[in-house]
Amino acid sequence: MQVLVSAPGKAILHGEHAVVHGKVALAVSLNLRTYLQLKATTSGKVCINLPNIDTFCCWDLSELRQLLPHFCGKREEVKRLDAELVKKLREFVGVADANLDTCNMAILSFLYIYISLFGSGELPSLTVSVWSELPTGAGLGSSAAYSVCLAAALLCASGAIPAPLKEWDHTARWCQEDLELINSRAFQGEMIIHGNPSGVDNAVGTWGGMLRFLAGKIIPLSRVPLLRILLTNTKVPRSTKVLVARVKDKINKFPSIMAPVLDSVDAISCTCEKVLSEMTSEPITGEHYNILEELIDINQHHLNVIGVGHPALDTLCRVTLAKGLHSKLTGAGGGGCGITLLRPETDSSVVQTTVQDLRDCGFDCWETSIGGPGVQQHSPLSVKEEVLEILNRY
Amino acid sequence: MQVLVSAPGKAILHGEHAVVHGKVALAVSLNLRTYLQLKATTSGKVCINLPNIDTFCCWDLSELRQLLPHFCGKREEVKRLDAELVKKLREFVGVADANLDTCNMAILSFLYIYISLFGSGELPSLTVSVWSELPTGAGLGSSAAYSVCLAAALLCASGAIPAPLKEWDHTARWCQEDLELINSRAFQGEMIIHGNPSGVDNAVGTWGGMLRFLAGKIIPLSRVPLLRILLTNTKVPRSTKVLVARVKDKINKFPSIMAPVLDSVDAISCTCEKVLSEMTSEPITGEHYNILEELIDINQHHLNVIGVGHPALDTLCRVTLAKGLHSKLTGAGGGGCGITLLRPETDSSVVQTTVQDLRDCGFDCWETSIGGPGVQQHSPLSVKEEVLEILNRY
Repeated sequence: MQVLVSAPGKAILHGEHAVVHGKVALAVSLNLRTYLQLKATTSGKVCINLPNIDTFCCWDLSELRQLLPHFCGKREEVKRLDAELVKKLREFVGVADANLDTCNMAILSFLYIYISLFGSGELPSLTVSVWSELPTGAGLGSSAAYSVCLAAALLCASGAIPAPLKEWDHTARWCQEDLELINSRAFQGEMIIHGNPSGVDNAVGTWGGMLRFLAGKIIPLSRVPLLRILLTNTKVPRSTKVLVARVKDKINKFPSIMAPVLDSVDAISCTCEKVLSEMTSEPITGEHYNILEELIDINQHHLNVIGVGHPALDTLCRVTLAKGLHSKLTGAGGGGCGITLLRPETDSSVVQTTVQDLRDCGFDCWETSIGGPGVQQHSPLSVKEEVLEILNRY
Repeated sequence: MQVLVSAPGKAILHGEHAVVHGKVALAVSLNLRTYLQLKATTSGKVCINLPNIDTFCCWDLSELRQLLPHFCGKREEVKRLDAELVKKLREFVGVADANLDTCNMAILSFLYIYISLFGSGELPSLTVSVWSELPTGAGLGSSAAYSVCLAAALLCASGAIPAPLKEWDHTARWCQEDLELINSRAFQGEMIIHGNPSGVDNAVGTWGGMLRFLAGKIIPLSRVPLLRILLTNTKVPRSTKVLVARVKDKINKFPSIMAPVLDSVDAISCTCEKVLSEMTSEPITGEHYNILEELIDINQHHLNVIGVGHPALDTLCRVTLAKGLHSKLTGAGGGGCGITLLRPETDSSVVQTTVQDLRDCGFDCWETSIGGPGVQQHSPLSVKEEVLEILNRY
């Protein structure tokens, strides 16, 4: 038995920070994907290979069975973590409570989903290998893409959901009900990794496309167009917690000035949602893109106003505008990542020179798209050669 | 008899464009001044010398007397122009109706105020010489400063108001009642030059300090601190009419996004007014300046959002920020002028290198101040040597 799946990353199109203050945010899938291959083995071992973060672990099934007496097997209750199991796993892996090291969190998340899915029956021996195109810790939902892939592949392996791929398909997706199951299990993985996640990242990884996020409620939007973008990582380190606090301070300092700015950001998200919806129901015109560009520019100014800009992001905007392209930060700001909208007619030579200009600034830069599909099962033919090569290395 | 007067230019501190949409604007006096010297002569001529715009005219009193039969001498009604006199003057000067040439407008304005003040009695022979530190046509109220100087000097010469200067004074100002008279006559000059002026520019030129402008109502603010600034003219030509229309279009295109931005600009003006008022009633601290800087940055972003930014203004902001200084456009935007706040402790070497950097960008740049006095009478000792030299050249 073998399953090959992928899930996309996430970008915030509009509404970052405003969402903390009760406004709408639009989260979109980012087509930099995480790929996971699960192979059933007869080795009597469970192995996980995470070459992106140099993490390779194997456990004998006999070791893992020691964890089972403590597992109550509450398979239905997936909105909360089994605290007893988490504690046992932390001891097993040797992780102190406050240790948020990426490698340990990835292992814990895997073992939690594995044990909670298989713990009430026989533990299967298998090897999981993961390769991601997403940078980690950049606010692009890399941990959620990982958790979604884990959930999809392990649910398949457990028989809880079918493998949707028919032999003539290259890629296939699950039905809504199965996606709900995947999303729930992935959310558990996110809880292990992040403590108190919003659930947006795993929802985007699962459903893809675009989600409207308002006051803790997540609403997947039925149809959105696929938009070409550049994703740029300024690599300027920032703390989301510090930035959220900075925005809150600025709102408290200038309430009458800042409250309308958040209202304007809210209106930007709603206008953007409307335009994207129009783009799926009527012929796409240049004016649709003009509006999307204007919304990006306006929101980037607003994000500067609320205090989450950064000179590196100004540079991103200036360099891309010199090529007629419009950019805004995405996520927490204060550095981190930005997105640049490409128009359908934008020449690939323009894209290439822009990418080079941004790399010359010391940034990482990828040409990709937003609004693409969520978690998918793949035939090996539908996965890039170099990704397959990495996954099959282990 | 000799009168030497000066009046300041005007800058919009906050609220440009928003004021067109019913929001507050703060207009401040700009201490780039227009100087006017009036000398009674026995030549039987009226002469005006405007070396800034290469305009030098003399008329025999006998010529001017020909205009009088058509002048009804409604000295009290100063809120409207005497249409008959305007028509007669246009014919006299040889100006077509639509000719808005600066030189002709300056002459018309002078002759209108002269005739309407002296027309019911004997016409005095006199020479008026004017020199301005203000660039013309840059939205800095140069025409109003000129009209205010004309009104003050000619009202003095006519005996309608006293000359306030005592022999031991260097400068002196008029009482409120006399300032009202000056402002009214100056407004007539502005009507000649601009057709339908708001009255803000002549009010700033008359009262100085800061004025709150809301829905056509002009309220002088009692006390404001003098603030050091750089005034930069990007020399990028722009049309106020086109920019006002552009903002209107953008509000119509994105009403839900733009209306809150105008509300935020309104709150910026009100917050700024409050801070400036605090600075006159309590010890000035660094935090006062921090807030003034933040308000400048926020408003500059908002002005970009409503569509009146320009790359040259972005350059101004970037160049000054590199020195830790904060700038915004002032007036119509789309090029034109910007102001840069200087803190009391900003070192003169920093100011000098910043001015040089801005000049290297091709901009004109002056170190000056805002919030200074309105129209003043001067003793020659209180006027810069080079200005006196120019005024006395004629």
